[in-house]
Amino acid sequence: METHLSFNDLMALEKQQRTNLVNSTGGFKSVSLIGTVDKSGNTNLAIFSSIVHIGASPPLIAFIVRPDSVDRHTLSNILETGCYTINHLNETIYRKGHQTSARYPGEISEFAAVGLTAAYKDDFLAPFVKESYVQLGMQFRERVDLSINGTILIIGQIDHLYFPENCLCDDAFLDLEKANTITCSGLDSYHSTRRLERLSYAKPDKELVSIPIKYRE
Amino acid sequence: METHLSFNDLMALEKQQRTNLVNSTGGFKSVSLIGTVDKSGNTNLAIFSSIVHIGASPPLIAFIVRPDSVDRHTLSNILETGCYTINHLNETIYRKGHQTSARYPGEISEFAAVGLTAAYKDDFLAPFVKESYVQLGMQFRERVDLSINGTILIIGQIDHLYFPENCLCDDAFLDLEKANTITCSGLDSYHSTRRLERLSYAKPDKELVSIPIKYRE
Repeated sequence: METHLSFNDLMALEKQQRTNLVNSTGGFKSVSLIGTVDKSGNTNLAIFSSIVHIGASPPLIAFIVRPDSVDRHTLSNILETGCYTINHLNETIYRKGHQTSARYPGEISEFAAVGLTAAYKDDFLAPFVKESYVQLGMQFRERVDLSINGTILIIGQIDHLYFPENCLCDDAFLDLEKANTITCSGLDSYHSTRRLERLSYAKPDKELVSIPIKYRE
Repeated sequence: METHLSFNDLMALEKQQRTNLVNSTGGFKSVSLIGTVDKSGNTNLAIFSSIVHIGASPPLIAFIVRPDSVDRHTLSNILETGCYTINHLNETIYRKGHQTSARYPGEISEFAAVGLTAAYKDDFLAPFVKESYVQLGMQFRERVDLSINGTILIIGQIDHLYFPENCLCDDAFLDLEKANTITCSGLDSYHSTRRLERLSYAKPDKELVSIPIKYRE
């Protein structure tokens, strides 16, 4: 049987129920840890599931920040230093990643609190998560305030990209499944993946074929 | 071994390689079919992997459109009619979903071309995908032009939500895995999921516990 809920039905739900349900409706989400540092060197780490691809040339990625949440240090640090890191969550660290969403006192770094290691690479100011296998060093490019509900879209450019060498395919597709990257749904559900297949570029009147996974030598 | 690519390395890649790689860096993505109709009743269906949660109250979801792509009918139809549908991709229809990205002539509906069924429900103008199990009827709320690369963020409000009754948990978490929703990575890789666990709300000095999946009676 199919359940139907209207806008009014959704608005009539108890708040936490609405949050759970609406956060599930968008599908499986990209989930990463965003690492930042303030001018005094205090590090911050926060989990985000609102990461979205903006463009490849230049390489741009965006995410949504809620200014009234525990994300606030992420936002203020990015505006202060102009940089941040995006670190894919994997099976070995998702519990620690989830724990970064706790409201720790301002003087406590989530790195220390949850037991993840801040790593500094290639003179990039913001800390990477050592235990993450796919890491992006991001340069802040633009802040777009969404007046509709007070959230903020932060657009950044990939200045550094790190990944396990053996996960790159010959057409530069990066095998995230091999890199152990996971996905999430709702507010709190974490999932590993199993590839169905890669599909060829779609053209009218041409049958789709599976693209075999061929790693670079 | 770890591979490191700088911004300049990424920009020096051949275009299709850069597109493949950069589209992989954001992690696993929400992937859905967006259904629209123009004022004359011509339907359009297009696959999008740039869907992002904006807020729960009111329930808002956004996605990114590239105006120079085959997505153009999606955008013009949404601006013309003020509504559209978001239909989760599942294991039974992802090949047909991928095929909607082919550049069909303007007079051909992707519904007919790929063999999916347009369904009309609750007097909503835009067509749903009958073969999709999680369907959203969206009201267009706001267009945000991202001058940084000419893409457009389309923000919509959930006016109708449909899902299989047996996938709803007692706290209103929707079990997308049970609903057969899938995820994607890069431009062309489709993946089913396997739940690791749901985790409790994080608090400092409190151990995380697994939330058991309990469906509503």
